[in-house]
Amino acid sequence: MAPALLPASFPLCVCLLLVSGVAQAGKLLVVPMDGSHWFTIQSVMEKLIHRGHEVVAVMPEVSWQLGQSLNLTVKTYSTSYTLEDLEHEFKVFAETQMTGPRLFSILFGSSNGFFELHFTHCRSLFNDKKLVEFLKESSFDAVFLDPFDVCGLIIAKYFSLPSVVFTRGVFCHYLEEGAQCPSPLSYVPRLFMEFSDVMTFKERVENYINHLGEHLFCPHFFKTALEIASEVLQTPVTPSDLFSQVSIWLLRTDFVLDYPRPVMPNMIFIGGINCHQGKPLPKEFEAYVNASGEHGIVVFSLGSMVSEIPEKKAMEIADALGRIPQTVLWRYTGSPPSNLAKNTKLVKWLPQNDLLGHPKTRAFITHSGSHGIYEGICNGVPMVMLPLFGDQMDNAKRMETRGAGVTLNVLEMTSDDLANALNTVINDKSYKENIMRLSRLHKDRPIEPLDLAVFWVEFVMRHKGAPHLRPAAHDLTWYQYHSLDVIGFLLAIVLGVAFITFKCCAYGCRKCFGKKGSVKKAHKSKSH
Amino acid sequence: MAPALLPASFPLCVCLLLVSGVAQAGKLLVVPMDGSHWFTIQSVMEKLIHRGHEVVAVMPEVSWQLGQSLNLTVKTYSTSYTLEDLEHEFKVFAETQMTGPRLFSILFGSSNGFFELHFTHCRSLFNDKKLVEFLKESSFDAVFLDPFDVCGLIIAKYFSLPSVVFTRGVFCHYLEEGAQCPSPLSYVPRLFMEFSDVMTFKERVENYINHLGEHLFCPHFFKTALEIASEVLQTPVTPSDLFSQVSIWLLRTDFVLDYPRPVMPNMIFIGGINCHQGKPLPKEFEAYVNASGEHGIVVFSLGSMVSEIPEKKAMEIADALGRIPQTVLWRYTGSPPSNLAKNTKLVKWLPQNDLLGHPKTRAFITHSGSHGIYEGICNGVPMVMLPLFGDQMDNAKRMETRGAGVTLNVLEMTSDDLANALNTVINDKSYKENIMRLSRLHKDRPIEPLDLAVFWVEFVMRHKGAPHLRPAAHDLTWYQYHSLDVIGFLLAIVLGVAFITFKCCAYGCRKCFGKKGSVKKAHKSKSH
Repeated sequence: MAPALLPASFPLCVCLLLVSGVAQAGKLLVVPMDGSHWFTIQSVMEKLIHRGHEVVAVMPEVSWQLGQSLNLTVKTYSTSYTLEDLEHEFKVFAETQMTGPRLFSILFGSSNGFFELHFTHCRSLFNDKKLVEFLKESSFDAVFLDPFDVCGLIIAKYFSLPSVVFTRGVFCHYLEEGAQCPSPLSYVPRLFMEFSDVMTFKERVENYINHLGEHLFCPHFFKTALEIASEVLQTPVTPSDLFSQVSIWLLRTDFVLDYPRPVMPNMIFIGGINCHQGKPLPKEFEAYVNASGEHGIVVFSLGSMVSEIPEKKAMEIADALGRIPQTVLWRYTGSPPSNLAKNTKLVKWLPQNDLLGHPKTRAFITHSGSHGIYEGICNGVPMVMLPLFGDQMDNAKRMETRGAGVTLNVLEMTSDDLANALNTVINDKSYKENIMRLSRLHKDRPIEPLDLAVFWVEFVMRHKGAPHLRPAAHDLTWYQYHSLDVIGFLLAIVLGVAFITFKCCAYGCRKCFGKKGSVKKAHKSKSH
Repeated sequence: MAPALLPASFPLCVCLLLVSGVAQAGKLLVVPMDGSHWFTIQSVMEKLIHRGHEVVAVMPEVSWQLGQSLNLTVKTYSTSYTLEDLEHEFKVFAETQMTGPRLFSILFGSSNGFFELHFTHCRSLFNDKKLVEFLKESSFDAVFLDPFDVCGLIIAKYFSLPSVVFTRGVFCHYLEEGAQCPSPLSYVPRLFMEFSDVMTFKERVENYINHLGEHLFCPHFFKTALEIASEVLQTPVTPSDLFSQVSIWLLRTDFVLDYPRPVMPNMIFIGGINCHQGKPLPKEFEAYVNASGEHGIVVFSLGSMVSEIPEKKAMEIADALGRIPQTVLWRYTGSPPSNLAKNTKLVKWLPQNDLLGHPKTRAFITHSGSHGIYEGICNGVPMVMLPLFGDQMDNAKRMETRGAGVTLNVLEMTSDDLANALNTVINDKSYKENIMRLSRLHKDRPIEPLDLAVFWVEFVMRHKGAPHLRPAAHDLTWYQYHSLDVIGFLLAIVLGVAFITFKCCAYGCRKCFGKKGSVKKAHKSKSH
């Protein structure tokens, strides 16, 4: 770079004016997903409400987070399960995820029950005739949904509304199928495989088999959801019917975390949508940080879904944390481990992003959920990752291959492992350098993810979809898509021509040499 | 939409701050392409210069437009050809393009000479030792190039500089290969095929054969360029070596014109970068428009590269133009046809975008070059398209399938055809409705294409490339990419297991039934 500096106040300013400068307030139906999924969809809804749109969210009565701290119209419906059922099923899900192969534990294992609960509340929604009537009469412009529980897609189809999907990913191959997006298995690792984009032959074989497995077994996983969809829509429904109607895919992906791969024009990447400029710390935390001295602090949280761990494991962790010179702020609601060291402060809640943004933060111990990972990237904090379930193992693998963190198996790790990992990411400068490089790349973007998400939701509301971004591939059969009929036809011609040429040559040869042969023979027999 | 209107001044404002708010001025090397290509790359350069970057352009001494009207450092080098040679070769190119199959006329026909001229000036550049020394010592941050003449790619490789490519497309399959972008032949028509994304079986076969032809014959087309690259880089160079080094592809594509298809994360779409808010018309044109009455005007231009046509054709056109009630403004530098009607005004130049933006403009007769097409879309003017060469036939096909224009073959059309086409696009309301729909979609974007282009050029300058957007596919062989080794391995296992199972069964059967059989036989023979 040349040394000349432009003034710091030299921004490239872009103004988004809605439809020729006049913005029309629209009506948006939101079908969110519970748990940590709620936090990010909430930020988009808040901005849409702030921009004057009427936002109505439909939610099951029983939930953890849904509808919290948001000024919107909420329509609830009763469910056939209680909060205890939900919590029990989630616990089973998380535990089986931690111990077995993740995809197949979801498809077949006992963790399936968690998804079944989510699928079934769609039936409860459509049984609530008053609610359905209200939704029908509301004339929404679009549906904004999390595809995790499929009900949003069923609602979109039932009311013939254009849909914007907001997600980190979709189980099985339905994102690729729904968006008609190629996904070469040679360098695009499947969900839950914990592979990087550079795979060994063995890994590529496993990736391929996993993909075949998805095609075989995923319809079974979505069976209940599809049965409900078929009942509601009064016609047999396939996953493709539901997923291929989507107008815009808002994907919480950024290519500093995920590996670059083919995408489609209606996929919009808003990874890091939850990153914000750090706010000043509350007094309690400010005091901890100030008292930490030159060694600074370590932030430790296993996310909003897990706040307690078995006592033995908690003691191992407490032991490791006591062996580093940093002050550790640990979000933990269980009873304090008896061996808790002086440098470790247990808190029921912590301002994660603001703490990560503090210059004294040296490391982040995380379950590597995508929210935490993006906050770590955003603030440039090296990580020790203890993935528990879902996409967390994949997230950890991605950060590890980029040299920005160390992954540990929470069930198998010893206190030595954790202490060593912490010392490594704090003292080996390469980890800080790598995460800072990722952070610079991640934050250097032409438009903020939240603004981009809001733009595309409004785009779909304004234009009643985005049909110009829908690829013609949707109207092809699988063999047409892969040109198998064309290849077959061309092969038939080539083989046909080769066969006829061969036959002609053979005939010609017989005619020429055959006659000569018989002349010779005749000649010979005469001479005898 | 709900009726409530937000104030017109309710913009969603986004500010792009360069690297933490401090923008560093960089040094950029530009290798542009001549002709109409110059006009759009120029707008990006202007903005980069305005933002304080040092921009140096290297250009051949002999050119049509290069370097015109721009305040930048220009470094020229002598060429082995004259302006007459260039003009002659272009004429041959345009004429053969109009009469034969376009791809193969470029690959083999006499129009090849036009490209050979462009390829050879790269040798002249590298023979200019003083210029090469200057470029070496300049320590540029990046190269910004039009890949049409390949020299920019050779320069990027020679000086090991990250590159940003600015183009509407790339001949042959080198965009797909260079970016590792899948391009399903079943719905992505190849360049010059004039197919839409919905193809018949016959068209899909032709598309497939064309693609095979590209793989067979394109290395021949690029032979001279590759020879020069090999001389310069002192190692054998393949097209893939040149095209796969690109950091960012700035593609003049927008999905209201081009068909949606798989793309890659380092492809940035800036179609319509040349569209601007119409400025007030110069007095001469203002007078024409005001005098046109209720019928309004028709704008007619065959682009900057063609300003004369054969006298007979010009008379046919003049005849057709005389039969519509609109005033026609025709950009034409030849001698006026003798039958020119009163409503037709010949002008040597016209402010095309400003005229198209005037509410009295009813239609646009265009050669359907991408600049003109985007100006037509931007301003919502239905078109009569007379494509001449290059991608113009494809552009025309795209607008025609979207119901926004009528295509005529300029060689075969009669004056009746032209008059009918004009009357159709002016009087059949569907054309105006369709182009207005496209216009609304096209202009409704989160960030202006020019700002986006500038952002990504600066991004590559700041980060010395965009390695995080480079897919791992670049490091795979073709059979690994398509998982053929994995499929072969799995097939071998399946067939092996099937074979062993069959053999075991057969052996088992023989053991069981074979013995029984022989016992029976023995029994039979005994009883006899």
